[in-house]
Amino acid sequence: MQLNAPLDMHLHLRDGEMLENIAKSSAHTFSGAIIMPNLVPPVSTKDEVIAYKKRIIKAIGHEKFTPYMTLFFKPSYDKAFLESVRDEIMAIKLYPAGITTNSEGGVSGFDVEELRPALSAMSDLNIPLCVHGETNGFVMDREAEFVSIYEKLASAFPKLKIIMEHITTKESVAALEKHKNLYATITIHHLLITLDDVAGGMLQPHLFCKPIAKRPEDREALLQVALQAHPKVMFGSDSAPHPKHAKEACGCAAGVFTAPIALQLLAELFEKHNALDKLQAFISTNAQHIYKLTPLAKKVTLEKKPFKVPAEYNGVVSMYAGEEIAYSIKEITYG
Amino acid sequence: MQLNAPLDMHLHLRDGEMLENIAKSSAHTFSGAIIMPNLVPPVSTKDEVIAYKKRIIKAIGHEKFTPYMTLFFKPSYDKAFLESVRDEIMAIKLYPAGITTNSEGGVSGFDVEELRPALSAMSDLNIPLCVHGETNGFVMDREAEFVSIYEKLASAFPKLKIIMEHITTKESVAALEKHKNLYATITIHHLLITLDDVAGGMLQPHLFCKPIAKRPEDREALLQVALQAHPKVMFGSDSAPHPKHAKEACGCAAGVFTAPIALQLLAELFEKHNALDKLQAFISTNAQHIYKLTPLAKKVTLEKKPFKVPAEYNGVVSMYAGEEIAYSIKEITYG
Repeated sequence: MQLNAPLDMHLHLRDGEMLENIAKSSAHTFSGAIIMPNLVPPVSTKDEVIAYKKRIIKAIGHEKFTPYMTLFFKPSYDKAFLESVRDEIMAIKLYPAGITTNSEGGVSGFDVEELRPALSAMSDLNIPLCVHGETNGFVMDREAEFVSIYEKLASAFPKLKIIMEHITTKESVAALEKHKNLYATITIHHLLITLDDVAGGMLQPHLFCKPIAKRPEDREALLQVALQAHPKVMFGSDSAPHPKHAKEACGCAAGVFTAPIALQLLAELFEKHNALDKLQAFISTNAQHIYKLTPLAKKVTLEKKPFKVPAEYNGVVSMYAGEEIAYSIKEITYG
Repeated sequence: MQLNAPLDMHLHLRDGEMLENIAKSSAHTFSGAIIMPNLVPPVSTKDEVIAYKKRIIKAIGHEKFTPYMTLFFKPSYDKAFLESVRDEIMAIKLYPAGITTNSEGGVSGFDVEELRPALSAMSDLNIPLCVHGETNGFVMDREAEFVSIYEKLASAFPKLKIIMEHITTKESVAALEKHKNLYATITIHHLLITLDDVAGGMLQPHLFCKPIAKRPEDREALLQVALQAHPKVMFGSDSAPHPKHAKEACGCAAGVFTAPIALQLLAELFEKHNALDKLQAFISTNAQHIYKLTPLAKKVTLEKKPFKVPAEYNGVVSMYAGEEIAYSIKEITYG
């Protein structure tokens, strides 16, 4: 089977040595990706965006992948600043303060009037707002509790495109239908696992992420919209590498690394559910429409041939490391 | 404050080197404990019970602690066998097959007629049945789903004392009130933590156990019955040591080690809730009534003086390792 211009609409490439180690994984099979800005310090100026993009392109070493850059949302962004940076970014990412890796400088409280100057300007400039939607409540409730904030923002800024990132609950799926300007990304791991896989048998740090994998009925709701390639949902891996020692330590960091195997796992999943004909929309076409972007031409041919996932990718342990998955990448062509 | 004859009604002492390393932790502060039989192979004959008890007493090195022995439940136990072993044991522990550490030989399906010979004989001989009550369902639902099995057994064998071990949910608390012959043990960690502490921030393998810590409202229900020392509930630590490397590895084993700090943590918790006057019943008197036992005389004096929990106890990392807790053991007297 062949995929045209696969897009990863939510990707962590990190920086420094980690960037060097893992950027090629995504660049190999994807046409482009939305790059998260939660570095230390977060990417929040035009110079930082430009410099980070350069470091990404250097780490990749070729031009057959487009990093779609984002800024780390701050309520202080004004229209003049946003106009000046508009051409360098594809979106702005909002983190509630302290909710996940390197999000300490995020938003506390969601007062519409406080956010109005920045969000109105983004709306006027057609800059989508990507949101990590979790409260600081009980871990299994954080996303469902955040839905009322999504709805408040969607109502207050009806022309602002709001992307509910890496959704994990039936409540977020339901919110998609209620507001025209709410969209969502879904990861491959949240389509495959529940909390049972993380903590139902032995504890599995490599499947531990934020938002945490939820209940079977939540996964079912995600599968329903993903497998039909609902026009408001897109693939976003949220592939989030940490060094092996940080994942396997006591007090392990959150994040699942899936970039090198995401397309293969999606092919296997969509085939299992007789939905292979919907994968192209989920992996690229929907995102092109939502973000109004034209991706770099790239064709990825997958074949149903077992692939043994390596134990590590340059010091990072991916999902299903050491296990066999059903699909392999056969060929990648450009232009 | 002083506690008379503290009892731990659910304890894993393991075997071999681990037994040698950790048995003294419990024997130091407790008068006695119900010893779980899930060794490899499980303790299921009279000779095995006697031999295991000898190994425990040898590991402890003194006689100021009573190990109350248990057998690993098998449906094949008949009355003659149970009569022959009655004097060596305090209870029999039932594990659903494969549900936790070393439980592979447990019960599959809960057909009352299949279980009737063994459970009727236990009822006639006044041998309590201790149960690890979890189905193989979704990790957050396993205990609540098992409540119907508790109720079925309680109705079918109305004179059999059934102890719902290490309960973690409001559903189990509710079941206590519905059946005269249902009792429960509660751990200190399930009174202190929820899933948030295990997986809400970084992943905390040393707080990972089975049953997994549940939701805030579940902990609230446990606190309500523990802090009033409800006459049908007893303290059972479920202290379950694993070597440090097995807890901090990828795929960590389930179990929280609390034996050396259980009394101190209970004193802190009960004081915080103005319930110190109920701790004696929770830690000993209730168990004496339920099990009809007279514990070895031992008085433990605790004082409100910070205690820094060691990083390890002989290669085992306890709850709150390296942290400061509010109470210390001041003095232990016998007789």
